[in-house]
Amino acid sequence: MSFDELLRKEVKNVPAYVPGKSIEEVKQEFGLEKIIKLASNENPYGPSQKVIRALKDHLNNLNVYPRIDIPELRDKIGEYTGVDRDQVVLGAGVDGVLETLFKLFIRKGDEVIIPSPTFPYYEILSAIYGGMSKYEGRNENYDIDPDRIVADVTSRTKLIILCSPNNPTGNSIPNNVLKEILERVHCMVVVDEAYAEFADWNALELVSSYENLIITRTFSKAFGLAGLRIGYGLLPEWLVPEYMKINPPFSTGNLAIGGAMAALEDVKYMKSIVRIIKKERERLIKELCIHTYPSQGNFLMADVSPFSSSEFTETLMKKGVIIRDLKRFRGAGTTKIRISVGKPEENDLLIKSIKEIVKC
Amino acid sequence: MSFDELLRKEVKNVPAYVPGKSIEEVKQEFGLEKIIKLASNENPYGPSQKVIRALKDHLNNLNVYPRIDIPELRDKIGEYTGVDRDQVVLGAGVDGVLETLFKLFIRKGDEVIIPSPTFPYYEILSAIYGGMSKYEGRNENYDIDPDRIVADVTSRTKLIILCSPNNPTGNSIPNNVLKEILERVHCMVVVDEAYAEFADWNALELVSSYENLIITRTFSKAFGLAGLRIGYGLLPEWLVPEYMKINPPFSTGNLAIGGAMAALEDVKYMKSIVRIIKKERERLIKELCIHTYPSQGNFLMADVSPFSSSEFTETLMKKGVIIRDLKRFRGAGTTKIRISVGKPEENDLLIKSIKEIVKC
Repeated sequence: MSFDELLRKEVKNVPAYVPGKSIEEVKQEFGLEKIIKLASNENPYGPSQKVIRALKDHLNNLNVYPRIDIPELRDKIGEYTGVDRDQVVLGAGVDGVLETLFKLFIRKGDEVIIPSPTFPYYEILSAIYGGMSKYEGRNENYDIDPDRIVADVTSRTKLIILCSPNNPTGNSIPNNVLKEILERVHCMVVVDEAYAEFADWNALELVSSYENLIITRTFSKAFGLAGLRIGYGLLPEWLVPEYMKINPPFSTGNLAIGGAMAALEDVKYMKSIVRIIKKERERLIKELCIHTYPSQGNFLMADVSPFSSSEFTETLMKKGVIIRDLKRFRGAGTTKIRISVGKPEENDLLIKSIKEIVKC
Repeated sequence: MSFDELLRKEVKNVPAYVPGKSIEEVKQEFGLEKIIKLASNENPYGPSQKVIRALKDHLNNLNVYPRIDIPELRDKIGEYTGVDRDQVVLGAGVDGVLETLFKLFIRKGDEVIIPSPTFPYYEILSAIYGGMSKYEGRNENYDIDPDRIVADVTSRTKLIILCSPNNPTGNSIPNNVLKEILERVHCMVVVDEAYAEFADWNALELVSSYENLIITRTFSKAFGLAGLRIGYGLLPEWLVPEYMKINPPFSTGNLAIGGAMAALEDVKYMKSIVRIIKKERERLIKELCIHTYPSQGNFLMADVSPFSSSEFTETLMKKGVIIRDLKRFRGAGTTKIRISVGKPEENDLLIKSIKEIVKC
């Protein structure tokens, strides 16, 4: 017997994460000088200068462990979201919060409903924890269909994961649809609002009313802090002590905590950036001569048929623009791409490059 | 049925993590001005100034996600440890590396051997993943007894976790003992070398020879970067692709990566700090008038009988010195404390305060 037989059987079925090409790799492969990357829904403006200043002040505090609970950050998140601070938990990005939720609820054979296409990490987490994933629940416009979601729920269903605005399709779930699901099912409903700051509405007002609603959020997108790894969850109060037991005690580093605190002290800056990005998003919808879908995120999905998404993405890459080919996003088909909204000059280059491809 | 019945049954059995009191809490509770904390085995000197400068340079890079693989950091760790870079993996501290190892190997009912007293987080992780923990395997001097370890292994045993130098007892495992265990068991042996830089030997030379040896290490201790959350694992090569699939893709933030890189560019600084701490450790053993155990870490275990560890710790706290009461460390009994080695002036205050208590 070899030692790899000691591995959990589930591990073998977990798909390897396939990262996109980095700017450096593309530069080398195609001999390009200048590359723009519009592939990871990052915020091109970065955080407020107040965050940078706060982080400098925290650099003398790196030798000590983070505290396990950060009440002053929960206070600030409570203020910002209007949710009771006792319903706020922290984690290493939305990824970290989600992983702790999987650890809390999922063991081998439990069911997870993941209406696709959506953020592929949900499916990976479900596979890691031995969950059985079901991917139905969206109609032809990619909107959530509550009847189909409810019909999929069984006594083994523990989690329904809804991304809103949905990555990559861009649409948000109306609160009346969400309420209908929350009321008709006996399982937890996770609404991943990583992109909520770019959207026309969100589900915050429902948090105090439902014992089975969890919202996850992040400082990676609108606040421009993807590199710091900090997010939060808004949980029903009964779940908070269990989350605190299971979440890794030192999951958010000292700089992540300090950065998040400072970011919430300059919400005005974040809002000004969001305004610019939303304006640019609408400009792209008008000026890109490919079929785009309406979006409430900082990204757009587009259908590039008759091109395949792979040839389109590759051709654009040779012109120095990296976007996301969605062929590996379950349920997205073979002609969809996702474009992150960049700075105006980056978007200009994107528009120009796409015009050269589709000749419009 | 209430929603908390959806939780995995194992979650209910996970003990809540009980953090020590923070400096602020102790100040308020006892009305003290000055407090020193020698309770978390932190490095009082912090990182090299080169690390601080490198981190400042990375502050303009916070809006982008970390890369999933950092080959240049694996190179540097390879150089530093003498282990092949293809056997190096990264994680969010030793905690993060260990959690990924539990995810890889442990499902409900699998056995984990955790010779105690040792770092309590192993036991918590085992409980989270549904492992059955066995705590035997040390003799009266707290040394590992290979016969007892081997006798405890069954066909359900997946992991043996050995901390070396062991937190809190301070002793390291001789390599011949480790080799004996590696050769006699058919399970993975994890050696947590978080404190290796303070020790007289380590197990690095064995990494290339055993398919079932895993070493975990960290930048939190000798390198003074506990607040950044970065550690690494040295794995048999067959395990690396599986680890990469299961480890959270963005588990180490951009600053953690940049800080670790810079730390390894100034190993000389780290070694100079380690020399000071080891010298202070030996001074404490001589000058503290309580029974201490030999230690290869940056901490000392002591037996304070006839005092109980709780009354001793509390009395010391009132004098402004926070140390670790080991009564919650399984197998440590009720008269043991752990003291982290501080700066000389902190150690002076510790010696003086303990003299006042034991009147020697």
